[in-house]
Amino acid sequence: MQHIDTLIHAGWIIPVEPKDTVYEQYAIAIHEEKIVAILPSNEAVKHFLPSITHRLTGHLLIPGLINTHTHAAMTLLRGFADDLHLEEWLNDRIWPAEKKHVDQQFVADGTKLAMAEMLRGGTTCFNDMYFFPDIAAEVAVQAGMRATIGLIVIDFPSAWASNTEEYLAKGKQVYDNYYEHPLIKMALAPHAPYSVSDDSLKAVQEMATNFDLPIHIHLHETESEIENAVKQDGKRPLARLKKLNTLSNKLIGVHAAHLNDEEIDLLVEKNVNIVHCPESNLKLASGFCPVAKLLKAGVNVALGTDGAASNDDLDMLGEMRTAALLGKMVSKDASSVPASTALQMATLNGAKALGIDDVTGSLKIGKSADIVALNMSDIETQPIYNLISQLVYVVSRDKVTDVWIAGKHILKSRTLTSLDIHDIKVKTHSWHKKIYADLKEE
Amino acid sequence: MQHIDTLIHAGWIIPVEPKDTVYEQYAIAIHEEKIVAILPSNEAVKHFLPSITHRLTGHLLIPGLINTHTHAAMTLLRGFADDLHLEEWLNDRIWPAEKKHVDQQFVADGTKLAMAEMLRGGTTCFNDMYFFPDIAAEVAVQAGMRATIGLIVIDFPSAWASNTEEYLAKGKQVYDNYYEHPLIKMALAPHAPYSVSDDSLKAVQEMATNFDLPIHIHLHETESEIENAVKQDGKRPLARLKKLNTLSNKLIGVHAAHLNDEEIDLLVEKNVNIVHCPESNLKLASGFCPVAKLLKAGVNVALGTDGAASNDDLDMLGEMRTAALLGKMVSKDASSVPASTALQMATLNGAKALGIDDVTGSLKIGKSADIVALNMSDIETQPIYNLISQLVYVVSRDKVTDVWIAGKHILKSRTLTSLDIHDIKVKTHSWHKKIYADLKEE
Repeated sequence: MQHIDTLIHAGWIIPVEPKDTVYEQYAIAIHEEKIVAILPSNEAVKHFLPSITHRLTGHLLIPGLINTHTHAAMTLLRGFADDLHLEEWLNDRIWPAEKKHVDQQFVADGTKLAMAEMLRGGTTCFNDMYFFPDIAAEVAVQAGMRATIGLIVIDFPSAWASNTEEYLAKGKQVYDNYYEHPLIKMALAPHAPYSVSDDSLKAVQEMATNFDLPIHIHLHETESEIENAVKQDGKRPLARLKKLNTLSNKLIGVHAAHLNDEEIDLLVEKNVNIVHCPESNLKLASGFCPVAKLLKAGVNVALGTDGAASNDDLDMLGEMRTAALLGKMVSKDASSVPASTALQMATLNGAKALGIDDVTGSLKIGKSADIVALNMSDIETQPIYNLISQLVYVVSRDKVTDVWIAGKHILKSRTLTSLDIHDIKVKTHSWHKKIYADLKEE
Repeated sequence: MQHIDTLIHAGWIIPVEPKDTVYEQYAIAIHEEKIVAILPSNEAVKHFLPSITHRLTGHLLIPGLINTHTHAAMTLLRGFADDLHLEEWLNDRIWPAEKKHVDQQFVADGTKLAMAEMLRGGTTCFNDMYFFPDIAAEVAVQAGMRATIGLIVIDFPSAWASNTEEYLAKGKQVYDNYYEHPLIKMALAPHAPYSVSDDSLKAVQEMATNFDLPIHIHLHETESEIENAVKQDGKRPLARLKKLNTLSNKLIGVHAAHLNDEEIDLLVEKNVNIVHCPESNLKLASGFCPVAKLLKAGVNVALGTDGAASNDDLDMLGEMRTAALLGKMVSKDASSVPASTALQMATLNGAKALGIDDVTGSLKIGKSADIVALNMSDIETQPIYNLISQLVYVVSRDKVTDVWIAGKHILKSRTLTSLDIHDIKVKTHSWHKKIYADLKEE
């Protein structure tokens, strides 16, 4: 009998790897933060002596969801500016509010609010792009949440930095502080082709190469972004990035709501990762990402919620469902983006995009124990003919009961163990009061 | 001081009528099933002596949601056939399963399962189309749920009836049994233009006129449906219905995912009601209903989930959100289908389509007390800048705590008072076992 930290028995397990697989009456054995076995429950009890045993017979275990595009701190601006065009939304509402309010405390409080919501919804890892990445990294570590922290670069000054040099220098400091942390990875995060100059992009590329970091960037989100680029540079943003040698398997391009067939070929050729944010694209009327085409061509497509100011939630189960539904209609093929593919996009493909698929993204021996338990016994999820499709098309985030990250029990029967929810609410209300005062002045 | 049955104090009330209105710290007074007053809480306590008082200070009250297109009993087939094309889904999976299994008990058990889900999600009224409408009416009455029961007509035999004459004669019996019931209305429900002949449609129209009933029909759901109609009849289905004099404000046309501009003009001219089912349309890749165009033209557009076999839930809050998000993108205008319009589609427009907007669809003095309470204090719904947009873009159905229909407390702190949830689960599992056996034989 082998001594282990934790044994979780479950009614079902969907490991994501291998694809289209469901284990019934299985258990996951966890030791020293990692998955050491996945086997039938009745065998598990013969092999392991766990310090802690969980019996979740009415539950389904899945790998932790990976939200591959967030602006976590912006959760404080949830619902601040709805039903507006993207340019108006960004230029007239979001950027002025950010200019006025974003500081270290805003990022600390907003990121905690976002993590509380994400954890309660089964997300164990997020890929963030925002100001004060040092603070985002700090609170993610406190919360025990896995994150890739974007070292932001943008061609305008902010409370975080005043020019490209300073953005990169401060980014370097964050890198130095966290590059050895097991939960924290970093990415260079130039905001978008339209907000970052060639020189800045070259400097970003250089630093990314030197430290072997991914590059996380908004890409081809709207038609007007592309039209303006053509007017200004004589080429579409993707062509410009190609010229700057930015296209590679280390690039994480977010949105891709406007792509021609040549551009899809280019993404395939260069192994670029795409993050699809269906709800943000719909809400801002940005465009329809050709997900089925990208998947068929072999592009790695992950999923993200985008910031709560354009979604308005950080609900990866909901995003996965929207991606599956919308992908069918956009491709005019009800069999495209099937449930198991949508699930893979929300888990393993996110891990691949972030370069951490050796650590997380599926339930596999040797990977980190990043696990989500979902209660499948409520009336809303009955009957169950096909568990994977039930998960994607029916299960909502309130069914998430427990979350483990690197074996730590972070959500326990819907209660957060590493974040003080009362304190988060108090701070959120206080920010709301401050920010709402501006709205009323208008 | 006036004696009343119930007084509900709430943090906020969105009455839907008048539009774009939010009352803070208000109360709703209920007496003899109806709303008798909506007024500030501090005034309410001076005017009324209620038998029951509820203090829901962290809650929002809205009118009961109206699911304007369901096949409730099909909830037993939730997830039975996913990721398939509509024709394959219907001809190879759904219809054979229905032929084998649908009987009185299936409809009783399936409709109860559907109602349990709908009530827990804030839906107080549904517009149903299925076999054995007598059973659907019976169980809706037992559950205390408001419903418009479709008296189905289809050109093939079923366990319910074998030909048009019998469909209509049995429908007439249902009408006779329920036409005076306060919660139950009826509609003629010819399945679709492609499944109901001219003669049958004429007989349907005659009965609808005689008894002053609405007509509930699937309409322009897919391109192939329209193409086949043109081949067969030389005209598109809407043109055929026009010729048969079926177009009027008593017609409830479901889907309308393919409409040209002339057809939109025709819908306006004839005051036809349209039910938009965005998630079903996406999942079956049926088409994009031009919602923003329809609304702008003045068409009454309501919302429905369709059956759980093509959605796969009966979640009107989710459907409202999808309608708002998708409507923006389809019209390429992020300001179209704003939150307050989406809410109206999910409530008042449904009541109008069903001809019961004098009874329900908004919180208004004199209307039935069909009320839903939502808990707004969880972390997922913080902060709140604009309550109506928060409701549409953020609030999920697990936040529904209480539901009243005609003043009766049908859902009490998430517990159903009129349906036995344990019994529903047991029966659902037993149907699942039976139906699943077929799937495994394949």
